[in-house]
Amino acid sequence: MANPHELVFDPSAHPHRRWNPLTNEHVLISPHRMKRPWLGQTEPPQVGALPQHDPGCYLCPGNKRAGGEQNPDYTKTYTFPNDFAAVLSHPTPDVPSPPHPLMTVQPVHGACDVVIFHPRHDLALARLSNDDLLRVIEEWVSIYKSRSSQDGIKYVQIFENKGAMMGCSNPHPHGQVWSLSAVPTMASTELASMKQYSLSTPPPSTAPKGPEGRPCLLCDYADLELSFTENEGRIVVKNDKWLAVVPWWATWPFETLVLPYRRHVQDISQLEDEEVASLADILSRVTTRYDNLFSCSFPYSMGIHQRPVSSTADSGPEHDIAHLHIHFSPPLLRSATVKKFLVGFELMAEAQRDLTPEQAAARLRACSDVHYLDG
Amino acid sequence: MANPHELVFDPSAHPHRRWNPLTNEHVLISPHRMKRPWLGQTEPPQVGALPQHDPGCYLCPGNKRAGGEQNPDYTKTYTFPNDFAAVLSHPTPDVPSPPHPLMTVQPVHGACDVVIFHPRHDLALARLSNDDLLRVIEEWVSIYKSRSSQDGIKYVQIFENKGAMMGCSNPHPHGQVWSLSAVPTMASTELASMKQYSLSTPPPSTAPKGPEGRPCLLCDYADLELSFTENEGRIVVKNDKWLAVVPWWATWPFETLVLPYRRHVQDISQLEDEEVASLADILSRVTTRYDNLFSCSFPYSMGIHQRPVSSTADSGPEHDIAHLHIHFSPPLLRSATVKKFLVGFELMAEAQRDLTPEQAAARLRACSDVHYLDG
Ligand SMILES: [Zn+2]
Ligand SMILES: [Zn+2]
Repeated sequence: MANPHELVFDPSAHPHRRWNPLTNEHVLISPHRMKRPWLGQTEPPQVGALPQHDPGCYLCPGNKRAGGEQNPDYTKTYTFPNDFAAVLSHPTPDVPSPPHPLMTVQPVHGACDVVIFHPRHDLALARLSNDDLLRVIEEWVSIYKSRSSQDGIKYVQIFENKGAMMGCSNPHPHGQVWSLSAVPTMASTELASMKQYSLSTPPPSTAPKGPEGRPCLLCDYADLELSFTENEGRIVVKNDKWLAVVPWWATWPFETLVLPYRRHVQDISQLEDEEVASLADILSRVTTRYDNLFSCSFPYSMGIHQRPVSSTADSGPEHDIAHLHIHFSPPLLRSATVKKFLVGFELMAEAQRDLTPEQAAARLRACSDVHYLDG
Repeated sequence: MANPHELVFDPSAHPHRRWNPLTNEHVLISPHRMKRPWLGQTEPPQVGALPQHDPGCYLCPGNKRAGGEQNPDYTKTYTFPNDFAAVLSHPTPDVPSPPHPLMTVQPVHGACDVVIFHPRHDLALARLSNDDLLRVIEEWVSIYKSRSSQDGIKYVQIFENKGAMMGCSNPHPHGQVWSLSAVPTMASTELASMKQYSLSTPPPSTAPKGPEGRPCLLCDYADLELSFTENEGRIVVKNDKWLAVVPWWATWPFETLVLPYRRHVQDISQLEDEEVASLADILSRVTTRYDNLFSCSFPYSMGIHQRPVSSTADSGPEHDIAHLHIHFSPPLLRSATVKKFLVGFELMAEAQRDLTPEQAAARLRACSDVHYLDG
């Protein structure tokens, strides 16, 4: 074999590491391994056609929930407090000072809401009309505003966990919103990275700026991705206001980052009407492409990261650097039944992937915007 | 309900957050939720009795591997390079300078070894004799030493990924060792925390000290855990030299941290004979209790964290602060078939658990040291 130093580095052929500037973590990429035979586990395929209404589903209109309450005959979205919330609304008793700095404890309170996206049992986000998606976004904004105004709430974490492969047993389209008296670890880590970036001096660009004219990590990153030609970059789809990209540092095989690129938007309550409509459009395009990739109802965890709540005293202008974005983390690897496990090396050392983000983006770009069940 | 501020804080009843000083991350604990009904997915139970030799197993003595080579008739441990290694032994070509600081790339090289623990197809670590476990540890030390001496290697990550639930399809007892030209993210994060702790001034203690008489995070933590009475703390089992504890900040339901507590040991090559024997003993006790907890071959990911390789120029005395330790991260939650998924809130916000570390430790303490299949 030739002296490898004489070869030209090819990110689609040579093992390398990429740095995730949002989390300050690395991902190990092993593209040469794409041809290895699959010796691992396969998952049972997703069930086929679902009923439009399931009498045994605790989320369908009119049905009883686990806690005993009955759902109303809702016709759009419907939100209720989780019957088994991870945090409680009343403050926890004051915690004693820790016996040692290695055993600190922090009180926490807040609320956990369940948001049903649609009365139809069988329609995930990918199958909803843009009008229905608009209502889901409006519901998120409404919960964000009302929970933000509650005493002591510092962060509103909107997320969706979809698919049996993700441990979510009920296919009825729904997500959750956990509002907490603390900024969760990941939001806090990303904020610190955005803050640090805003104080650095990256190469000049025409990207939108953050507060006080400072550089914004995600405004700059979006601008950078937009500078590649359509077929060589990592952008899956873009519209007027938003783009969806398989980030340079993606961990999950078909991970995407969805973000507004026209201006520095801090949280969903700041979105203008056109931006909301445009978000509905891109959510539809991303989730439809996901379903079309392996012709299945694509499992994923989705989470919205945004500005900590502004009403609290300690969330001043320093949080204005937050740039609203949405993460999609899907576990599927090479078919509807082959899952990526985050175990072993990844649990003990660092993230690792074989398929490059560029290859993943190309595959998602090649998928249709029309859902395979509606084609 | 009474004013909660008048109540006394009870970590086994009130939601709270704990801080992980190794990773600088938080975990949200919701002990009040332990009584919620289980609506989630269950996994198929592990298969029952395995043959002592499986003609279809690519790890059994004398069988052919996926790469085409034949295993020798080994009688103790057997190590070979992974046929589909995530990194390659020859250096990657020099990488060009990144177009932007948000798109950095780093070359990486190294080696991936597979370590078969024993010729018997059916004997996991929990079923091996202490003599056989001793040979596994000696094999790890031998690989650590030989890979450490190779050009450019900076870290030797020893790990095991066990069980179909963890995506490991072959029950033949084996682990892996990935030796890399970079210190992986998690080891690097933990080292930074240990470094920072060594420069802080924690409360005085009689714990062993790190280099230059400075405090060591894990020496101090072990000392702290040893100060609790046997039934109220988080220690699962201890012997002469090692202890196994469900750490204060544990993420996984039955996560344990195994560490030497008598002196500041930096890596496995520094272990004295007595410490190796004592490690074999505690590994047997921990894995046996795991199997006994739900009467099954308990799945987990295990990883050894230790000092980066000392032969490289940039791994000077500043890495002496590393304290050797072993993480066990098992996914089982409440039975052999109910798994915890790290999804949704945990993937997007922060780690979350219902069972407290104290409750988990008590359950593991209550398990026998004698394996249920050998009882
Ligand atoms: Zn984010
Ligand atoms: Zn560690």
